[in-house]
Amino acid sequence: MSSSALTREQSSKAFDGHQYVYNHESSTVGCKMKFGVYVPAKAEKERVPLLIFLSGLTCTEQNFITKSGVQRLASEYGFIVANPDTSPRGCKIEGDSDKWDFGEGAGYYIDATESKWSKNYRMFSYINEEFYELIVKNFNVNPNQIGIFGHSMGGHGALISFFKRPGQYKSVSAFAPICNASKSDWGINAYTKFFGQDKNLWKQYDATELVASYHGPKPHAPVLIDQGSDDNFKDKQLFPERFIDACKTASFPIELREQAGYDHSYYFIMTFLEDHFKYHKKEFEH
Amino acid sequence: MSSSALTREQSSKAFDGHQYVYNHESSTVGCKMKFGVYVPAKAEKERVPLLIFLSGLTCTEQNFITKSGVQRLASEYGFIVANPDTSPRGCKIEGDSDKWDFGEGAGYYIDATESKWSKNYRMFSYINEEFYELIVKNFNVNPNQIGIFGHSMGGHGALISFFKRPGQYKSVSAFAPICNASKSDWGINAYTKFFGQDKNLWKQYDATELVASYHGPKPHAPVLIDQGSDDNFKDKQLFPERFIDACKTASFPIELREQAGYDHSYYFIMTFLEDHFKYHKKEFEH
Repeated sequence: MSSSALTREQSSKAFDGHQYVYNHESSTVGCKMKFGVYVPAKAEKERVPLLIFLSGLTCTEQNFITKSGVQRLASEYGFIVANPDTSPRGCKIEGDSDKWDFGEGAGYYIDATESKWSKNYRMFSYINEEFYELIVKNFNVNPNQIGIFGHSMGGHGALISFFKRPGQYKSVSAFAPICNASKSDWGINAYTKFFGQDKNLWKQYDATELVASYHGPKPHAPVLIDQGSDDNFKDKQLFPERFIDACKTASFPIELREQAGYDHSYYFIMTFLEDHFKYHKKEFEH
Repeated sequence: MSSSALTREQSSKAFDGHQYVYNHESSTVGCKMKFGVYVPAKAEKERVPLLIFLSGLTCTEQNFITKSGVQRLASEYGFIVANPDTSPRGCKIEGDSDKWDFGEGAGYYIDATESKWSKNYRMFSYINEEFYELIVKNFNVNPNQIGIFGHSMGGHGALISFFKRPGQYKSVSAFAPICNASKSDWGINAYTKFFGQDKNLWKQYDATELVASYHGPKPHAPVLIDQGSDDNFKDKQLFPERFIDACKTASFPIELREQAGYDHSYYFIMTFLEDHFKYHKKEFEH
């Protein structure tokens, strides 16, 4: 996919670097897409690592940059942090805005195959090709130090991107990820629409299924997953234990930290965000 | 003012403490009022300092707790941080919701005298009596270590509270405060409505006027004011230089830091928030 021109919508100095919001015309999903990118002062002088953060259900590019406190860490660690939107927008597909857990704000980072959705709902290719290349091309990124992480639906997006693109990302981590999308209520509803009844397609976008057949490079330290114990979605939508079991079976290194008393919100993310920066930094140094 | 019962609306664990939102029926402003309060784990065992943060125009109790990253600092420094709303709400006074810079979300932390507004727009008494007492009574606050700070309209609120209540607050600081409210366009519009034409009333809620007649205890270190150089409101609404001149004339210790390239947003606040914690901590230790 060729990269189109970037239009700057927002620029605010923060922690000596800049938090930007840009938009561009995406050829992959067929609409204008916004994204946030924090550029630390360090990136003015040298190439720096890149972290891509994928957000959860209902989010735009604003939630993560407004609520997580990421700018302080990106400045201190000297990382560019880029965060795309969670779906195409404004495509006016019947049913894309009826529910908060499907369609706009809820693209599940997949490439749909059903004709109704397959023109626009191509977030997997958008993230891992067009958006990825756009960031590497336009910002001072060290292409050997790129990690991906995310929250909830975005944690799912980060994990499936890592597994389906062996070697593209040096590191992956997640906050309260949807670990077994094809068997959660959110995922069953979405995948029925995006893929129809062919469950083999569903499994191609499910972290618990994908780890079993993953043969790419393994991270040095166990992949870091934080999960709040008071997260209302844990037992019915996220299924972290199933993913851990699948990782064990596949001998894939993983660490699930159950964080006592924490919920599913950005207060949970902000608390443990620095640990994820530390984790990715360590992987980048190998 | 007697304190009414608190109703908890929100509770999220963050940095080992809790970010709460409560509401209560305010006898001072005659409506239900919400506020945020972060309680660090340390406060479970001992009395801790309190910082009251006053927000700027258009804010509710959510903006500061969502966007500033305050929880990390409150946890690390062991402070309770309480932030009230910026006006009464739902009082249905004609004209209270027509403009973003007057009325709901824009109470200017004054006690109005004009009869149309004087029943509800009593935010000065609300903050410095009812809300203050509510927090001290309901949370584990060390009453000898209470500071106040704020942003923009809330910086104005913090400064006038400090000057009009000598000794009540051990420390005060501000981000991009409205320094000379009675001569800014925002203030002229609001004070005309709240006070009518009696300019002596206007001066009683103006930091630049109040410092000239202040005879209370002075802080040990100069009061800390941060001001972004790229803040669009600086020259026409905030007037930091006038306040600095008035402080010099009054021999009141103050430090204005012009922060190159920063704007008026929470990205500016989050960047320098820790310096304000350090400042208040030092004052508390005297």
